[in-house]
Amino acid sequence: AVAPVWARECPARAFEREEGLGYFSASDGTHSKGRTNPRKRESPVLPSTAADVFRYSVTPKTLKFSLDSMGADKRRVRCIQWAIVFVILFFVGFIIGWFAKPMPVQYEKPSPSYLHEFLDEMHAENIREHLRKFTRLPHLAGTLQNLRLAEQIQKEWLAFGLDSAELVWYDVLLSYPNGTKPNYISIVDQHGEEFFKSLLAEPVPEGYEDLTDIVPPYSAFSAQGKPEGDLVYVNYGRTEDFFKLDREMGINCTGKIVIARYGKIFRGNKVKNAMLAGAKGIVLYSDPADYSAVGVEPYPAGWNLPGGGAQRGNVLNLNGAGDPLTPGYPAKEYTYRFSPEEGLGLPKIPVHPIGYNDAARLLKNMGGTASPPDWKGALNVSYNIGPGFSDEFKQNKVRMTIHTYNQVTRIYNVIGKIRGAQEPDRYVILGGHRDAWVFGGIDPISGAAVVHEIAQASGKLMQRGWRPRRTLIFASWDAEEFGLLGSTEWAEDNAKILQDRAVAYINADSAIEGMYTLRVDCTPSLQTLVYDVTKQVGSPEVGEEGMSLYDSWHKRDNWTDNRDAPRINKLGSGSDFEAYFIRLGIASARARYTKNRKDTYSNYPVYHSVYETYEIVEHFYDPTFQRLLAVARVRGGLIFHLADAPILPLNCLEYAHALIQYAHGILKIAQKHPEAMQRYTVSFDALFSAVNNFTNAANDFHQRLKKVDTTDLLAVRMVNDQLMYLERAFIDPLGLPDRPFYR
Amino acid sequence: AVAPVWARECPARAFEREEGLGYFSASDGTHSKGRTNPRKRESPVLPSTAADVFRYSVTPKTLKFSLDSMGADKRRVRCIQWAIVFVILFFVGFIIGWFAKPMPVQYEKPSPSYLHEFLDEMHAENIREHLRKFTRLPHLAGTLQNLRLAEQIQKEWLAFGLDSAELVWYDVLLSYPNGTKPNYISIVDQHGEEFFKSLLAEPVPEGYEDLTDIVPPYSAFSAQGKPEGDLVYVNYGRTEDFFKLDREMGINCTGKIVIARYGKIFRGNKVKNAMLAGAKGIVLYSDPADYSAVGVEPYPAGWNLPGGGAQRGNVLNLNGAGDPLTPGYPAKEYTYRFSPEEGLGLPKIPVHPIGYNDAARLLKNMGGTASPPDWKGALNVSYNIGPGFSDEFKQNKVRMTIHTYNQVTRIYNVIGKIRGAQEPDRYVILGGHRDAWVFGGIDPISGAAVVHEIAQASGKLMQRGWRPRRTLIFASWDAEEFGLLGSTEWAEDNAKILQDRAVAYINADSAIEGMYTLRVDCTPSLQTLVYDVTKQVGSPEVGEEGMSLYDSWHKRDNWTDNRDAPRINKLGSGSDFEAYFIRLGIASARARYTKNRKDTYSNYPVYHSVYETYEIVEHFYDPTFQRLLAVARVRGGLIFHLADAPILPLNCLEYAHALIQYAHGILKIAQKHPEAMQRYTVSFDALFSAVNNFTNAANDFHQRLKKVDTTDLLAVRMVNDQLMYLERAFIDPLGLPDRPFYR
Repeated sequence: AVAPVWARECPARAFEREEGLGYFSASDGTHSKGRTNPRKRESPVLPSTAADVFRYSVTPKTLKFSLDSMGADKRRVRCIQWAIVFVILFFVGFIIGWFAKPMPVQYEKPSPSYLHEFLDEMHAENIREHLRKFTRLPHLAGTLQNLRLAEQIQKEWLAFGLDSAELVWYDVLLSYPNGTKPNYISIVDQHGEEFFKSLLAEPVPEGYEDLTDIVPPYSAFSAQGKPEGDLVYVNYGRTEDFFKLDREMGINCTGKIVIARYGKIFRGNKVKNAMLAGAKGIVLYSDPADYSAVGVEPYPAGWNLPGGGAQRGNVLNLNGAGDPLTPGYPAKEYTYRFSPEEGLGLPKIPVHPIGYNDAARLLKNMGGTASPPDWKGALNVSYNIGPGFSDEFKQNKVRMTIHTYNQVTRIYNVIGKIRGAQEPDRYVILGGHRDAWVFGGIDPISGAAVVHEIAQASGKLMQRGWRPRRTLIFASWDAEEFGLLGSTEWAEDNAKILQDRAVAYINADSAIEGMYTLRVDCTPSLQTLVYDVTKQVGSPEVGEEGMSLYDSWHKRDNWTDNRDAPRINKLGSGSDFEAYFIRLGIASARARYTKNRKDTYSNYPVYHSVYETYEIVEHFYDPTFQRLLAVARVRGGLIFHLADAPILPLNCLEYAHALIQYAHGILKIAQKHPEAMQRYTVSFDALFSAVNNFTNAANDFHQRLKKVDTTDLLAVRMVNDQLMYLERAFIDPLGLPDRPFYR
Repeated sequence: AVAPVWARECPARAFEREEGLGYFSASDGTHSKGRTNPRKRESPVLPSTAADVFRYSVTPKTLKFSLDSMGADKRRVRCIQWAIVFVILFFVGFIIGWFAKPMPVQYEKPSPSYLHEFLDEMHAENIREHLRKFTRLPHLAGTLQNLRLAEQIQKEWLAFGLDSAELVWYDVLLSYPNGTKPNYISIVDQHGEEFFKSLLAEPVPEGYEDLTDIVPPYSAFSAQGKPEGDLVYVNYGRTEDFFKLDREMGINCTGKIVIARYGKIFRGNKVKNAMLAGAKGIVLYSDPADYSAVGVEPYPAGWNLPGGGAQRGNVLNLNGAGDPLTPGYPAKEYTYRFSPEEGLGLPKIPVHPIGYNDAARLLKNMGGTASPPDWKGALNVSYNIGPGFSDEFKQNKVRMTIHTYNQVTRIYNVIGKIRGAQEPDRYVILGGHRDAWVFGGIDPISGAAVVHEIAQASGKLMQRGWRPRRTLIFASWDAEEFGLLGSTEWAEDNAKILQDRAVAYINADSAIEGMYTLRVDCTPSLQTLVYDVTKQVGSPEVGEEGMSLYDSWHKRDNWTDNRDAPRINKLGSGSDFEAYFIRLGIASARARYTKNRKDTYSNYPVYHSVYETYEIVEHFYDPTFQRLLAVARVRGGLIFHLADAPILPLNCLEYAHALIQYAHGILKIAQKHPEAMQRYTVSFDALFSAVNNFTNAANDFHQRLKKVDTTDLLAVRMVNDQLMYLERAFIDPLGLPDRPFYR
């Protein structure tokens, strides 16, 4: 008898139909007229329906007999009792029905508490151990030792609990000194006798004397040869330096051997400039003005570069091309290769690096023009420019003896993955290189140790049931030192899916290069996240217990002219993020501990020398490993949020703000040349109009983003796609003129 | 008293927790171990829980008083009655609870019945009217008349019910004859007197005599000039023709004016080849062998080209670059433009097209070498190659007088949109051009009329509540005839979002070019959909009532060597799909009614002449407009499925199959040159290995696709992304050598 009652009125059915239609037309965020909000609907439909059911349920004939047989009072009491029972029964049924209803596939929001568990899983002592373990031996790209290290990392990542860890190889062009014919610079007398020769190797630090695999300082990819001639001092070897030589001083470098001090620009550009100036060889050296901090002792007593130390490094002009023989394509067995002579960006002249002791000897008796003051370094020499030695030594010449050779060699990346729980097709990449010139105490193992600890912390979290919403990729790149080869080849190998799916790339090269504060370079859209993360991390500095890294950083490096916040830099080039950020347009960031911006020395003094040991970190850069821990937490916090946040933590308003700054920056430069502006009728209107359009669109989107229904999986995916592809929108597939991979 | 019962045992809560966890780890299709199927869970959890509640609910203390006061029999009856009431009450509550629970946003599956409603909404009579209306006046790109037509289409699309319709302009380089100084070809005597001049215009067909805006035949982007010299007949002007002239016949074209017949290759390539051969001018003409069907009368008695008709057309070599002054970028007010002389792909020599009457006069007295048999056309002349006329006319020369000029001109695309209901950020594009050389009766208005009817049918469907799952974009391109300019500029303008979001591009140029059967060119992944759609459409042929278009097509053009199915061609180039398919990698297709493959004439005879009128379609090509209707339904059916199907109708297995065919095709060509294969150690191993890998991956994916839970919105989106980006995976951003936009 009751059945027909609810069957006749069945509100649920009506609701289903309406709801269905409502949803059907409601699926896009803009056409929201047709949308029915289930929560609003709930109250008008439910209570009245429930009341209807209740009213009918006390009067059906089947109940009459019990009611008729009682007195009025008793009846009233019983009626109320029964009513209560009925109401309770109804609600029991209602609630069970409510929860019993199967829901379409839905995802739990990640618990924010996992972030702190994640950060707490990282430990300074672990990082110390990783660094110690990974820096015992040299790990030059292409050597067996570096393959063994790759295998070790692979094994440990799997042990940590990553879903997979693979070695991915490429056959790329590398460059090594000849094992039996050493490279050196000499001074020869009029008979061609070498009466001075530069050091063939750096004095090896204590504890490493028995190692046989320390590669001597060399310029990778140098041309072979024995050029001999007069020396010209070209300061830093910049375009403006060669201009000055040519236009102001009237010094022609054609046929000369030039000597340039390291610093200011990438060494490959010094070589290119020397070639363009006609030099037949270039010597690179580390001047104490650029590679010694004031008041600091040379290693091992301090962290300055000793006089016998020299900076290794490649001298290519790749501009992001990766392997010189397979630009644009992965260096696999099936790939067409240029012949070695056709290789992209290879210098045509011999190049060699020396320390400042040897440089002092070469520069000591220089003749010719005197240097302008700002060309003078800190050696006790005249810094005369030459060409050649002063009159009394005029007969002496400088000779370069270079036997370095190029060879196609197999390199190995380690690629570890944690598959995303909800969006396995969205990738967050944490990548840094593993290959080192020698021990890599700072570059790159301080960074690799940090990556290792982040991988371990991820594994531990997974054991407790955590799995990131998106896929996490850990990469240990090979052959970064030879032109970002491992990272670039892998990007070329996976360009299509990375372009479609990569949310962000976090670079993990050296984690420390100074003792002052944090340094972050990133795309503008990641700035907000960087600030958020650093507020969750503690300062590693003594005396700042309880202070956040953000505050510690803010105190030391305020972004004064832009805003009252810690300074964040634009991403440049020169590390493994190039292929990801500059070529593919994936939002990228890097973070490390750095020196004070006011310090005038380049990099850190022992950069790319044999003195980059575990001990230099332990004794000087980070004795408690708290700084490396802080960097680990920043890098880890970034990938955690990027991989786990339902809405991608990319801020388009920051991007708009940065574009405005950039546009004004360019305008400011242009305005220094008013005649040229007028002659070429240069207008900035279109640029500012575009920036304005972008800003308006970013504002609109940001507003819409706040209103996104986070239970609407498709709506979330759609806005996330927009956020993900924001960085891609700045990529021009045609690249810069003559630099097709700088897009 | 009841409350504690369900509060203590609360199964719903337990269910929520389990379900929650289950969903959390279940969200990716592969890691399905942790997944809980809500439907399976339903039965064990629900009945036992319901039973528990029922058992408790008949024994609480508050019920005792009524049970104690009755006899055992009566009690039993009443007990049962009460039990029934309780059960019913419980279920009422349960069911209300079930349906009252608000569900997360969900989408109804599109009703497949809409397809037939959609197809049925298209009518032959409407297409006839659209064609009639749009072909009354000439609509040359860059003219006011073509802007007016754009505005008309915009207005009508809005009236049909599209969400938006906009004019989108670009300022591109176009080319026109000089209004006062006509172009022509002449024969001059030894005194330089022109004693023969080619026609300055085609005889205008009946009914159009009063129109003043008919552009005379010309070669758009021809260089200006008055070259004069001996004529050389170069057959079709192909590479092999010039090779034959140079290597076999020893005829040097340097400084000559060459005359080539239309056909076989794109006219722009004829001009390029002539330039490379050193010619100082090139005359193009339509030979009856290529532009007259056997047994057919010239228009208006039949559909053959009259002797005074000539083929207009651009003679650029753009290779997909779009506007010659802004290759790679949209031709907007803010874009850097090359100077007109730097324009990409512009010919450096004068070019002019003539009809076969004039050509016969030029060729009549040719001297020099005799033609090989396959160089002879169907004119009553010797087809001697020259150079120059035969001995008795040796003093006569041929002169070209060309005043055509290039001019940056504003063009207008019409872009209409129907916003997608569920995935507004996924685009299905139906685009075809609107600009015509004259009336465009066939090219392009037969196609534009079809697009118009599809837009109208879409609007009608929307009035009944339909809205496609994805966004539909209708495009009426401008300046296709000048090098695919409108479509390419729009693609350049929107490259980023198209690359991210475009699911497919369906091209809609001329819908009919013959009276035989359907012709489809498409990417392999669309083949299955093309077959599916053509099975839903009826044959337009008389006597085939009730037969499907598929069967009619299959009967006439079987893909014998590949399979027993209608032939589908690879997409070539030369229409507006270029920027979408070849540059951006968007799955594309085109469909039109065509001639029998065995017919030897090129295109359709009146191609690009003034005789492309409404009447030629009405009288000859499609008197009942059933063929155009069939094409409308094919094109419409394609975009309907692509825009509405939950899983994208793209078939990766077909792609694998095609790749295997292509690879074998290339191998077969290579094997014709065994010595070269050996000399250059050519191996096909890597190619076949890659094809094999692709095939295996496609098979795996296809299997996974069948198992996708279509209620899992994120899972559907993920596989759809993979399907959408499949075509993009074949794009090389570096392009072909020297053709950066053929990617």
